[in-house]
Amino acid sequence: MEEIYKGKVKSLFKTTNPDVLLMRHSDLATAFNAKKVENIPGKGSLNNLINAKAMRLLAENGIKNHFIKKINDTDCLVHKLTMLPVECIIRNYTAGSLVKRLDIEPQKKLSRPIIEFCYKNDSLGDPLINQDHMLVLGYATIEQINFMTATSLEVNKILSGWFLTAGYILADFKLEFGYNSEGELLLADEVTPDGCRIWRYDTLESVDKDIFRNDLGCLVSGYKEIAENLL
Amino acid sequence: MEEIYKGKVKSLFKTTNPDVLLMRHSDLATAFNAKKVENIPGKGSLNNLINAKAMRLLAENGIKNHFIKKINDTDCLVHKLTMLPVECIIRNYTAGSLVKRLDIEPQKKLSRPIIEFCYKNDSLGDPLINQDHMLVLGYATIEQINFMTATSLEVNKILSGWFLTAGYILADFKLEFGYNSEGELLLADEVTPDGCRIWRYDTLESVDKDIFRNDLGCLVSGYKEIAENLL
Repeated sequence: MEEIYKGKVKSLFKTTNPDVLLMRHSDLATAFNAKKVENIPGKGSLNNLINAKAMRLLAENGIKNHFIKKINDTDCLVHKLTMLPVECIIRNYTAGSLVKRLDIEPQKKLSRPIIEFCYKNDSLGDPLINQDHMLVLGYATIEQINFMTATSLEVNKILSGWFLTAGYILADFKLEFGYNSEGELLLADEVTPDGCRIWRYDTLESVDKDIFRNDLGCLVSGYKEIAENLL
Repeated sequence: MEEIYKGKVKSLFKTTNPDVLLMRHSDLATAFNAKKVENIPGKGSLNNLINAKAMRLLAENGIKNHFIKKINDTDCLVHKLTMLPVECIIRNYTAGSLVKRLDIEPQKKLSRPIIEFCYKNDSLGDPLINQDHMLVLGYATIEQINFMTATSLEVNKILSGWFLTAGYILADFKLEFGYNSEGELLLADEVTPDGCRIWRYDTLESVDKDIFRNDLGCLVSGYKEIAENLL
């Protein structure tokens, strides 16, 4: 298979259908802009499983996305997209870079979600941008920004309820978007504990990549617990 | 005189009128969040002069601000304000942190001004924030944001024309706002080459604090040139 994109923990391969790609979840974990890297056997297949569940749930609830189907332990098929150069972070609780940048108390519920747009550029550390940056520098149009904002809020409602039913708080998460060959803007990328902060409801303990970031124990057991509890 | 606020290069003192403060421009120059500091004789009086001209011009053009009058070389009287915890950066050309954070070409004219809001906190390096941060974290209301945005764009028009007539490009600048004792939101702080990027129209050479930041020569001669050329 021809690899056409190699990310930090995922790769995309060509298939016989030019509009369909194979997305493979590796066992690698990376943090702090890939300054910390580790191979964690079992992580890829758990991410593939959780992502498949999440993307199917979102599609059933009207959120069009690039996911087609899971085809084995670590791989799924997705529609080929032309990605927008921005990512959306949706925050329900204070955590991570928000806490650090603004020196605010962590693990506090926000009165309503905060949406951040970042310019996707690893070497720049995915810097925060505002609407003027996107419009004037050409990263996104107002229609694209409005679509991403509305979709992010809708995805947040669906996923937050889903995690809550399983006993978890969805503290924050990241989404990406891209155009398919028909010119439709779709939710892309993945929904996994790599790109979400997920906390046990009662104790606010992390069961996501923060286990790896902050050396809190066994990442695979956290991901496995999530995968088993999510319907 | 009782000093009630000591900034990096300006101080505020009480006067006999509780609603009026004395603002003193010192000769200190600071850059890179005060990692670079130097005493530059003559700078304070030039800033006081340029600021007085700018604030009078803005008032004449309908921009209410805290400036009352210049009273000597380095001092002026201002209305006492309760400051908002954010600052506005208005960018007409690419420069400074915008260029560095997003890796874009410097000294390019933007198709329209970019406005950035930053959370005023020296120890955090005045981090960029978006509208959601301001609204949800309580830094500013939507009415305050709309007022600051509209006022910043209007100030930009007035100052850009003024600098252009004197032979300069106003590449970017910073504004702050605060409430007076009557509950009016006013333009505050200062308009000086400390907080503006000002370039010679033909050569795009800096005549502002970048002379000090980037060791480009004599800061006072740049400020003096501006003070003499501005009407």
